[in-house]
Amino acid sequence: MEQLTITSTQNPRIKQLVALQQKSSERRRTGLFVVEGQRELQHCIQAGYQVEDIYYCPDLSSPPSEGRATPVSRQVYEKIAYRDSTEGIVATVRERHTSLSELRLPDNPLVMVLERVEKPGNLGAVLRSADAARADVVIVCDPLTDLYNPNLIRASIGAVFTVPTVCCSSDECIRFLKQHGIRILTAQLQDSHLYYDTDMRSATAIVMGTESTGLTDQWREAADAHIRIPMLGRLDSLNVSVSAAILLFEAVRQRQN
Amino acid sequence: MEQLTITSTQNPRIKQLVALQQKSSERRRTGLFVVEGQRELQHCIQAGYQVEDIYYCPDLSSPPSEGRATPVSRQVYEKIAYRDSTEGIVATVRERHTSLSELRLPDNPLVMVLERVEKPGNLGAVLRSADAARADVVIVCDPLTDLYNPNLIRASIGAVFTVPTVCCSSDECIRFLKQHGIRILTAQLQDSHLYYDTDMRSATAIVMGTESTGLTDQWREAADAHIRIPMLGRLDSLNVSVSAAILLFEAVRQRQN
Repeated sequence: MEQLTITSTQNPRIKQLVALQQKSSERRRTGLFVVEGQRELQHCIQAGYQVEDIYYCPDLSSPPSEGRATPVSRQVYEKIAYRDSTEGIVATVRERHTSLSELRLPDNPLVMVLERVEKPGNLGAVLRSADAARADVVIVCDPLTDLYNPNLIRASIGAVFTVPTVCCSSDECIRFLKQHGIRILTAQLQDSHLYYDTDMRSATAIVMGTESTGLTDQWREAADAHIRIPMLGRLDSLNVSVSAAILLFEAVRQRQN
Repeated sequence: MEQLTITSTQNPRIKQLVALQQKSSERRRTGLFVVEGQRELQHCIQAGYQVEDIYYCPDLSSPPSEGRATPVSRQVYEKIAYRDSTEGIVATVRERHTSLSELRLPDNPLVMVLERVEKPGNLGAVLRSADAARADVVIVCDPLTDLYNPNLIRASIGAVFTVPTVCCSSDECIRFLKQHGIRILTAQLQDSHLYYDTDMRSATAIVMGTESTGLTDQWREAADAHIRIPMLGRLDSLNVSVSAAILLFEAVRQRQN
């Protein structure tokens, strides 16, 4: 049976979709989020996420191969599309939350920890770099954004689905790392070593705070070593996702040599 | 004599300011651009740029110490402020263009080259990393954005003023690098070495293309070596500013050890 095309932006399913994109409270209430774009949806499905509904715009996309999809008019699509690049496909997907106790880590894991990250775009960019460096997990402590924010998904270009990610408190995370014998390297200036003079070949967690306020005291105290990226120019900071990439790829370099 | 406060958004100076922010054609026509924020303006003045006019909003900022400034009403400031964080100060500044022949490079320079970069935000982020790694110059070949785009200045957090920057054609740049005996390392997958197995201690230019199409053939042919960042995950690319930072800081590491 052919699906009826949704042509009204007032359709309750369309209104729900827009609410899921715009409001973290709506995502929390329903346990659903929105994925936009062919490539992102494929990563999401490959990672085993449960897709609820798929919508596509026949003007922009052929019917997706991923399952039954509802066609929507161009006007409706423009209402629900969050991104500029109109790939013509949007889906609602069930959230998935992994806890620390469910994590299965290999020997000598490489762990990325971000404390109190505020900007979804920054977290997404870190996830993209964590995918490239094949970090074993990204742990987000006391986050101020939810993982399924559309800006985060966009900036991650789908890495939010390919990289194991856990949200928890800093307390829980520190306990977990200590229990598993994972060295805690905190990115901070005080009493610090240059990051490339620091051994990252054994089980290592690289821990970063916010650009504005850095890490909280509990991390400074829990640290096995403080590391810094040398700032050789006139300005005094790097973007958090750039710093994370420099540190993660130093671990890659050390581990491959 | 006290300056009169500008209270109308229709004031011709205010309209000119808005045009300079929004239109590269207006910047080209007048040779002026707009700097917003106390810190950015300080970097700009320290770098010897010629400031034409300073505007400030007394509700948000004390009169700036940098010279005679025109007060504007809150409403006018909101019209001219490009950024969210309202620091209350905006200035028009004369553009400055450095040519390759004016460049003075030290021994064993570290040069960053970007070909056909499209997004001002990406170029600004690269400049920020180039400042931190103290690259000697960033050369922008055949750019699709101008250096004084407000998004670029914002993403650079002022590095556009602290890092020597030259715009030229790829042809001119290749000739310059060859003449000065600077090794050309192009970031590309084909026939490439891992970046951390490549010597960057002698005079080195790291050359990157766009995320979508990479480098043009002339760069591939001019290259002394092709280098790549290993992509160990499921996705196939890194953001250009993240890649630039990883490569620049590998040069820093090699040169400090």
